[in-house]
Amino acid sequence: MRIARFSVREGSPAAGSVSFGIIEGDAAQPDSLVVHTLAGHPFGAPQPTGETHRLQDVRLLAPMLPSKIVAVGRNYADHAAELGNEVPAVPLTFFKPSTAVIGPTESIAYPPFSSDVQYEAELAVVIGRMCREVPLDRVPEVIFGYTCANDVTARDVQQREGQWARAKGFDTSCPLGPWIETDLDPADLAVTCTVNGELRQAGRTSQMARSVAELVAHISEAMTLLPGDVILTGTPAGVGPLNIGDEVAVSVEGIGTLANKVVKR
Amino acid sequence: MRIARFSVREGSPAAGSVSFGIIEGDAAQPDSLVVHTLAGHPFGAPQPTGETHRLQDVRLLAPMLPSKIVAVGRNYADHAAELGNEVPAVPLTFFKPSTAVIGPTESIAYPPFSSDVQYEAELAVVIGRMCREVPLDRVPEVIFGYTCANDVTARDVQQREGQWARAKGFDTSCPLGPWIETDLDPADLAVTCTVNGELRQAGRTSQMARSVAELVAHISEAMTLLPGDVILTGTPAGVGPLNIGDEVAVSVEGIGTLANKVVKR
Repeated sequence: MRIARFSVREGSPAAGSVSFGIIEGDAAQPDSLVVHTLAGHPFGAPQPTGETHRLQDVRLLAPMLPSKIVAVGRNYADHAAELGNEVPAVPLTFFKPSTAVIGPTESIAYPPFSSDVQYEAELAVVIGRMCREVPLDRVPEVIFGYTCANDVTARDVQQREGQWARAKGFDTSCPLGPWIETDLDPADLAVTCTVNGELRQAGRTSQMARSVAELVAHISEAMTLLPGDVILTGTPAGVGPLNIGDEVAVSVEGIGTLANKVVKR
Repeated sequence: MRIARFSVREGSPAAGSVSFGIIEGDAAQPDSLVVHTLAGHPFGAPQPTGETHRLQDVRLLAPMLPSKIVAVGRNYADHAAELGNEVPAVPLTFFKPSTAVIGPTESIAYPPFSSDVQYEAELAVVIGRMCREVPLDRVPEVIFGYTCANDVTARDVQQREGQWARAKGFDTSCPLGPWIETDLDPADLAVTCTVNGELRQAGRTSQMARSVAELVAHISEAMTLLPGDVILTGTPAGVGPLNIGDEVAVSVEGIGTLANKVVKR
C-alpha cells in the first residue's frame, strides 16, 4: 500500500485541506493514479472517507510529520571510506529536527553559512507504533513503511563543528517522499541519486553495515519511538555537492523518486 | 511571571486535566502559592480561565513540550577542561528529542546500556515565537522565559559513539522545570547541582563562553525555532555520576529548583 500526505490544489471545494491518502493505480501510467482520502492518520486500520482525487490534482507533501528523525552515519563501508572514515564499531546516531522536513514539491534552500552543501540518498524507515527496546525479531511489527530521504548535509559545517545539529539540521535539510510504501522488504533495494539527471550514487541496501532491524533495535534500546518517527539508514558512496539551480532526485527501488530543486534561501 | 504546566490531582472535579498556569504568591512561603489556570497555551497574551488551585494540590509537569531541544556542549571553559576538552571555536550543538523530556515530579530511569550516567545542571531558554536568523540585538524578543534543565548524559556511551543521540537522548535524559520564569536577566545567575543534598556543581552563567543571545543567534542562523522549543546553554564544572536511588537537584538563581530521583528503568 502506498500512503501519501497531500493538500488539494486550488479550484476544488476541498482546496488547501491536508489529508493522508492511499494511492492506487498503475505507477507505469501516472495519469491513472488516484488518491483515496483517509480520515485522520493512516496508522492501525486506515479509514477512507470515500473522497477520491486524481494524483495529478493534488500536491504531495512530506508523507509524515515526524516528532523526531534519527539518522545513522557511515552505514555503508564505501561511503565511510570516501570521506576517510571507517564503519564505526557502534552505529553512529544523530538527530535531524522536525523543522528540517520538506516534501517532494518543496525546494532545498541553500543555507548561507555553508559553501559545500551535499546530497545523501537514503532509505527511510517510518515507525508505526509507539515502542522501546524492540527485539530484533519483532522490529517488523513496529515498522509502518518506507520512503525516500535526502540527508542533506553542509559538509564544511559538519567538519568544522564536531556535533552535527547545524550541519544536518538546517531548514529544508530533510526531504522525505514521495509517499510511504508499506509492503516492502528492505533487505536488498537499489538506492540511487541523480543531480540534473546524472547518476551520482548507486548502492544497494544489502551493503548496509547494519540492517534496518539492527538499527531500529539499537536506537529503541535508548529511546521511545513514536508513530511517524523516521529513521534514516545511511547513504552509499558517491556523495557530492549541490548548487543553486540543481535538481536532485533520490530513488529507492520499490518506492519511487523524491526530487527537489535547490534554491537560494 | 512564573508559568507552570500541571495536572490536577485526584479528588478534584478537574482531576487529570493538563493545563498551563500562572503561579502567584510568596516563594518563601510555599503553602501560600497558587496557580491560576490558563486557557490554551501561555504565549502571547495568556488568558486566565478564572480557575485557581493551591500549588500543593497540583502535580507539576515539564513546563513545556518542546518540538525540539537544541543543546550546547563545552560552553563553560572549566567544564570543558575537566573532560580534557577546550571550548570549541564554533559552538558545539546537538539535539535532545522530545521523548527525553520529564518534569519535576518524574524520575530519571537509568538506561541499561550505560554504567556511567552523569548529571549536568544547565540554564534552559524557552523560545516564545517562531523565528529564524535572529540578530543578536533582537534575541530578547523571541525568548519566552527560562527554566532549569539537567542534560543527563551516559558518559561512557558518549565517549564510545561519537555522535550523541543515544548518550544524551535516551528516555528521561532531559528533566525540565519546575516552571518557566519570564522576567529574568540571564547574564549572571548561579547554576548549581546537588546530589543527595551535597553540592557538586556551582557555576555562574557569566562564565559561559557564549551568551544566551549568541547561542540563539547561532542556532537560529541554521534552523527555525518554534514556540516552546528549548535551548540548553551548557554546564559548569563538577559533572559526575548518578546512581540508582540518588536525588539530583538543579537550581538556577531566580528560577527555582528541579529535583529528580534516579530509578532503575
